Amino acid sequence: MRIVSLAGGIGGARFLRGLRAAAPDSEITVIGNTGDDIVLYGLQVCPDLDTVMYTLGGGIDEEQGWGRRDESHVVKEELAAYGVEPQWFGLGDRDFATHIVRTQMLRAGYPLSAVTEALCARWEPGVRLIPMTDDRVETHVVVSDELGRRAIHFQEWWVRMRASVPAERIVLVGADEARPAPGVLEAVAEADAVILPPSNPVVSIGTILQIKGIREALEGKTVVGVSPIVGGAPVRGMADACLAAIGVETTAQAVLELYGSPLLDGWLVAEEDAGVGLDGVRVEARPLIMHDVEAATAIARAALDMATDLAASRGRATGTGSEATGARNEAAGAQDEEER
Amino acid sequence: MRIVSLAGGIGGARFLRGLRAAAPDSEITVIGNTGDDIVLYGLQVCPDLDTVMYTLGGGIDEEQGWGRRDESHVVKEELAAYGVEPQWFGLGDRDFATHIVRTQMLRAGYPLSAVTEALCARWEPGVRLIPMTDDRVETHVVVSDELGRRAIHFQEWWVRMRASVPAERIVLVGADEARPAPGVLEAVAEADAVILPPSNPVVSIGTILQIKGIREALEGKTVVGVSPIVGGAPVRGMADACLAAIGVETTAQAVLELYGSPLLDGWLVAEEDAGVGLDGVRVEARPLIMHDVEAATAIARAALDMATDLAASRGRATGTGSEATGARNEAAGAQDEEER
Repeated sequence: MRIVSLAGGIGGARFLRGLRAAAPDSEITVIGNTGDDIVLYGLQVCPDLDTVMYTLGGGIDEEQGWGRRDESHVVKEELAAYGVEPQWFGLGDRDFATHIVRTQMLRAGYPLSAVTEALCARWEPGVRLIPMTDDRVETHVVVSDELGRRAIHFQEWWVRMRASVPAERIVLVGADEARPAPGVLEAVAEADAVILPPSNPVVSIGTILQIKGIREALEGKTVVGVSPIVGGAPVRGMADACLAAIGVETTAQAVLELYGSPLLDGWLVAEEDAGVGLDGVRVEARPLIMHDVEAATAIARAALDMATDLAASRGRATGTGSEATGARNEAAGAQDEEER
Repeated sequence: MRIVSLAGGIGGARFLRGLRAAAPDSEITVIGNTGDDIVLYGLQVCPDLDTVMYTLGGGIDEEQGWGRRDESHVVKEELAAYGVEPQWFGLGDRDFATHIVRTQMLRAGYPLSAVTEALCARWEPGVRLIPMTDDRVETHVVVSDELGRRAIHFQEWWVRMRASVPAERIVLVGADEARPAPGVLEAVAEADAVILPPSNPVVSIGTILQIKGIREALEGKTVVGVSPIVGGAPVRGMADACLAAIGVETTAQAVLELYGSPLLDGWLVAEEDAGVGLDGVRVEARPLIMHDVEAATAIARAALDMATDLAASRGRATGTGSEATGARNEAAGAQDEEER
């Protein structure tokens, strides 16, 4: 089975670990968000790609959810001693090495997708991780504070301000020119199922969907999403602050409508959100809290089962599923016979 | 008093610590060697500038003589885990921060001299440290080994091979185009004394002297050198391997002749080397081993005393020393009187 998944950071990475366990014989391609990427101290930092890579590669700080296990912070302390800004982004020493290698390769002319593949050669994440685009895009947030109304980098809003100032707008700078990285549209075209993890629907999944051609490609596939909102609150992170910026309520229903149809074919919600619904989307309720890998695996398995079932019934309904196609071809053959 | 000193790495830095102690009220300008500089993992590393900066700034690993005190090596281990080459250059985590800041500033367009000044704002070395040039130069070494005859970066020969393969030639690539960094020639022009520490006469002092205009500027000043060779062997390091490459014996006499006159006015040698000499150069013998800061201070004081004395007698001889100038002016005045 060929599966495509979109992913942001922590939530996406933890879900993917479950997905990999739920479908050990499948080829999984992960399209990673790069809108959070930021150049720090001249180094290219890709927080979401790294969180996926470290989580699936066994190098993640499990408690924190991002960054490396057994991490130290000597380089960061030294940079602060030099008075270098910013000092609010917590890069550890092990993590620095990743950014140094990435930056060196990018400067040598390799596209981010090739660099990511090279980094993954060490981590062996068990999935194919592709950045959504090799082009430079950056999520900026418009805020108004004592410095006036201004656009700041997403990380400044998210990490430094902890989203304490309301986001008036969230803009993916560079989205108009960005093209999907090599392999992205091909993987979607070949996918038997597409799974949207409970990543941030605005600045993770929403960002990936803004890259030209990706949403259109997904709309032709069987797509099942896992709600990142449980009982009116984000499972983790500050998705509510991002949803507010685009005028969407923090409910499983509102996010379902945000993704909408024809993108979504199935939607997994938590049991307390049973009752949400949208025409053209099958909704199932089940426990959605990823306490551990087993819980994440169970959720991923439910999403995959739903996708498989939807694809089969879609095949029956539209005649494009593989079994249904066989049946249709037989029927067409019969018709041909008749016409002769 | 205004003093200019040229410096390589460990030996130069330790001598400079003595020079600073010997002349606490003087303005000391250090012209640092950048021929050893190397780009590693996309970061600009300046080993000699950093050794001077860390040593005078109190951050050096005293035992090792280079690198930072209380150093860790997490970044380097991680780079090795990614399979990144080279793995033979020992950058520590604290040190990495320096190279990250430097590289960021260089990429932002600042010349190396401005970057060095910015880094020194943290270290407060008590001297003005200027790279010999802002232009890119690199010392390369021609060797013949199982891979054939080839030119390699000085650091590969020095650090990786430990100079175990004979150097057939040592070439400063870029020397023809390089100009002295801003402040270098001005500092020399204003200097009351120039001191050459016991740095490597080929790849440290010799490299600095290759930058257009520096040797010529020094030849007009009172220059006292401290022999890096004691009893036929380098005090430390592998200066013998460098001297062999340019066909010079490893003796205090041979290095004296290498620098020669008119560059040198004075030459301090170890007691066991008493007897070396060259026309036009005053030679004094005294203990030259820098066991500690006190020993380095004593050597530096001897060099300064010699320079002061030489400048005074030179003044008497040529009428350009300050006291002699006063006397000459009086005499000239008297002559004027007579001519009237």
